[in-house]
Amino acid sequence: MTDAEARDRAAAMLAEAGIVLTPLERDEIEIADFGLGRLEEVGLQIVVYVNTDRVCAKELVLFPQQRCPEHRHPPVGGEPGKEETFRVRRGTVHLQVEGAGDVVLAPGEQYTIPPNTLHSFRAGDEGAIVSEFSTRSRDELDVFTDPQIVR
Amino acid sequence: MTDAEARDRAAAMLAEAGIVLTPLERDEIEIADFGLGRLEEVGLQIVVYVNTDRVCAKELVLFPQQRCPEHRHPPVGGEPGKEETFRVRRGTVHLQVEGAGDVVLAPGEQYTIPPNTLHSFRAGDEGAIVSEFSTRSRDELDVFTDPQIVR
Repeated sequence: MTDAEARDRAAAMLAEAGIVLTPLERDEIEIADFGLGRLEEVGLQIVVYVNTDRVCAKELVLFPQQRCPEHRHPPVGGEPGKEETFRVRRGTVHLQVEGAGDVVLAPGEQYTIPPNTLHSFRAGDEGAIVSEFSTRSRDELDVFTDPQIVR
Repeated sequence: MTDAEARDRAAAMLAEAGIVLTPLERDEIEIADFGLGRLEEVGLQIVVYVNTDRVCAKELVLFPQQRCPEHRHPPVGGEPGKEETFRVRRGTVHLQVEGAGDVVLAPGEQYTIPPNTLHSFRAGDEGAIVSEFSTRSRDELDVFTDPQIVR
């Protein structure tokens, strides 16, 4: 699947969920394959609504069984790392969180991941849409467990 | 309109927009009349998804022409005040922001209000649903221009 195809598919899932994007947001949906080249298996499609010094909000789109690999958000410049809340809008999400084990989230359910805590997640067979509410996002500082991953 | 009626109406608008709540969230939709007793004219219906020390996310429901009166979020304990981004999901929102004048937002459009900046907003004739992404929310510290208002 090309990035353009992934973008079309993610945009269709968002539209079906009634989530309205501007044309520019739609064209700029971020396709993240974590440098592995196996997007449909390990990857994410991301709409960044806002990312200031203090607050970030995104929509994450996951294709069926697609997963985001294990990582953590380390402290930055005296501040604790990124704190993020995942709220599931569509589909089922299987979330693994260091110290909390497996968490299964249905639409309307959410989970807050503390800073610097290892976590990974994947969608069920229908794919998923997840709203992420967090402190500032600095993807380039994320620490992944798999050394092959490049964010 | 009683609080229970307002809650039912807000829940119906959220459901129609495809926004899924848990039964508890639905029952706890906050009805804010700002102490004025004229909810349909001046008021807000609010679902608080998360409000930690660092991050807050809410869904705001506005009935047709309902408005949120002018206020600002002052600095707190050495930190700048609340920073908030309003993203319109349904309906039209007329936002007034100190120094920026009138801003009209359609679905998919958004605006970030800096800390300590006077602002007010109202819905158009169809009502509106607005996602709010912000730093920690401390409603009791908001400074309203109208001295009759109690939050």
